[in-house]
Amino acid sequence: MTTPRRSLLAATALATLLPLAARAQTPSPLAELIVEKKVFEFRDYRTRGGAALANGRVGYQTAGTLNAAGDNAVLITHFFTGNSHAFGRYAAGEAPGYWDSIIGPGKPIDTDRFFVVSSDTLANLNARDARTTTTGPASVNPATGRPYAMDFPVVSIRDFVEVQKLLLESLGVKKLALVAGPSMGALQAIEWACAYPDWVARAMPVIGTGEVDAWLLGWLDVWEAPIRMDPNWRNGDYYAQGRQPPMAGLSEALRIVTLHSRDRGWAREFGRRPAEGQDPARRIGDRFAVEQWLEDAASARARVSDANSFLFLTRANQLFLNEYDSRDAALKQARARWLVLPSAGDRVFPVEYGHELAAALRELGQPVAMQELKGDLGHLEGVADVAQAGEAIRALLAG
Amino acid sequence: MTTPRRSLLAATALATLLPLAARAQTPSPLAELIVEKKVFEFRDYRTRGGAALANGRVGYQTAGTLNAAGDNAVLITHFFTGNSHAFGRYAAGEAPGYWDSIIGPGKPIDTDRFFVVSSDTLANLNARDARTTTTGPASVNPATGRPYAMDFPVVSIRDFVEVQKLLLESLGVKKLALVAGPSMGALQAIEWACAYPDWVARAMPVIGTGEVDAWLLGWLDVWEAPIRMDPNWRNGDYYAQGRQPPMAGLSEALRIVTLHSRDRGWAREFGRRPAEGQDPARRIGDRFAVEQWLEDAASARARVSDANSFLFLTRANQLFLNEYDSRDAALKQARARWLVLPSAGDRVFPVEYGHELAAALRELGQPVAMQELKGDLGHLEGVADVAQAGEAIRALLAG
Repeated sequence: MTTPRRSLLAATALATLLPLAARAQTPSPLAELIVEKKVFEFRDYRTRGGAALANGRVGYQTAGTLNAAGDNAVLITHFFTGNSHAFGRYAAGEAPGYWDSIIGPGKPIDTDRFFVVSSDTLANLNARDARTTTTGPASVNPATGRPYAMDFPVVSIRDFVEVQKLLLESLGVKKLALVAGPSMGALQAIEWACAYPDWVARAMPVIGTGEVDAWLLGWLDVWEAPIRMDPNWRNGDYYAQGRQPPMAGLSEALRIVTLHSRDRGWAREFGRRPAEGQDPARRIGDRFAVEQWLEDAASARARVSDANSFLFLTRANQLFLNEYDSRDAALKQARARWLVLPSAGDRVFPVEYGHELAAALRELGQPVAMQELKGDLGHLEGVADVAQAGEAIRALLAG
Repeated sequence: MTTPRRSLLAATALATLLPLAARAQTPSPLAELIVEKKVFEFRDYRTRGGAALANGRVGYQTAGTLNAAGDNAVLITHFFTGNSHAFGRYAAGEAPGYWDSIIGPGKPIDTDRFFVVSSDTLANLNARDARTTTTGPASVNPATGRPYAMDFPVVSIRDFVEVQKLLLESLGVKKLALVAGPSMGALQAIEWACAYPDWVARAMPVIGTGEVDAWLLGWLDVWEAPIRMDPNWRNGDYYAQGRQPPMAGLSEALRIVTLHSRDRGWAREFGRRPAEGQDPARRIGDRFAVEQWLEDAASARARVSDANSFLFLTRANQLFLNEYDSRDAALKQARARWLVLPSAGDRVFPVEYGHELAAALRELGQPVAMQELKGDLGHLEGVADVAQAGEAIRALLAG
């Protein structure tokens, strides 16, 4: 993710902050935004479905400074497999957040100007990752002293919004100058703008959709099916000592997500090469290099993920805008300025969903700009290469 | 599939064949093309991968009459879940073949003019269907007296072509006026045109691709993964009495294919309706109507299908044009007139694959026409609604 363009951007930002002597040098590690992962705790939350959560915790991080009016806040909402790490580094030399190319001092979402917040969602997938804090099916149910497993209540994208609102209120935020996120983060941004129009001045759904229609409901079910098929899943009851989590099912689910969220241009480098030492034209058990790569990538990802959380996350996505009669019934509640950024080669939320969202907003008389992201990565363009829309983001925040 | 347009087409064709008195009547059942399923047997076949098949059988059907020169033959090649039943009915009142809208007396592929042949492929998926005859992993290995299972040799699309050639030669065919098929059938049509340019005067790949690149290799692997995950699969050894075939895995694999080969327009009727009596917003085990429909459709399909055959079929597709260095190295062998029919909303072989195939053929100086199929069905437009290209097909066969 460290492209020449990003380094240039970082250097430009740096030039305004450092003494003259430093300007001629390559950016030092000090130029990097360092962030701290914190934990927000909440009590007695009632889910939108009516269930009680006695207490909960989500991780978050911030950058910049909240102004006295509390209205220069920006909320960044994460994608399906993501967490709060959208910007900055936890220590010099560590990997930057997924949208670090557009968030930071002098960047399109300028932390010199805005107080930027990003939190882990409820039921976050990375429940076994040390740097993710979430409340979900892998959390201990205070009523039993054991993990909730499938007794965790169904939560929706709207529930993610509600917990984010509690967090923002705890930080003194009164209004959001912008709510923005990619993929599942786009769904949260839209849900925010519809649920709390007084809060949301601007919304930027990236690689998103204005509706999760029946075809997308079906795909989310395809994503999760391998988990339910794994005999180790045991109807979600795999946390007890001596039991194995359903790693094969979870890996396969993540393999589908990995392929689906990329496009053919990404895969080009593999060609039709067999995996090392394999001969798929002669042995049915042998395979191609791309198959091996996908399996390895998914297995690595599965090691920090939780299978039940995957199931609750797909459901949350299926319940996008479920409290409204239709997409437009939801959108007409909003009073935001919009920037819609679909990706031309998106296979998860094909580009026409983005066009239709922008058209629906225009039809409803809301100010909306749209730019198609281009590139080989498909859906992932909206995560790895969102900086190509940097000028459009600056324009949104200038207005 | 009985649209007003098709009835009209059938009536028009009929008018030229029946005495005047009949013309004023609605078409009688006699107007329907009745076909017979036959079996072709072959011996001592060596696969392209070098394995020996002592004997084999594939089902086939024909319509029309072969001319003395043996050069008015048309070969129809079937899709992944299909079989030879591309045209006609096995008895009056039974369901017609999948391309019956374009094949028959007076139809674009006119059985008054052409001798039309269609056969089951090797390793056909419908191994448990009474009207499919195939040689594949579910067939008895003469060396052991038990089903081959995973000992069946890897076969490729080219192997399908080789067996079809043996069948055609046994029928006296010398040349193909046309080879045409949808999806996996398109791959066979292309492979035919490249392997036997002297045979193939015209080729019509429908909802196909000129290359199975790494991204498509990966998707084929996603399709089959649920079978390998099912504990009843037992590395393919599930045919013995007392063992259960991997129906859950096979159903899930077919569910992916069912959704992938359709588009969002098809799913519109389901909306976001829960399945009957279910409440997915409150109960994690409950589901939406579209999920239930997909499961029911896939389970029904699984009952006549064979899981190991699915694995050998995905591999055959992965091996498309595997004997050539590249797509263009293959295509430049051909000397056919082409009609390429991609579908605008295709999610399996996205429409740009069709455009690129047509462009590559043009670049190589081969005569090619292209028409995008439109409609809500996505990939399946090329099966269920190919008649929208009727005039283009007539033009191809007129030239």
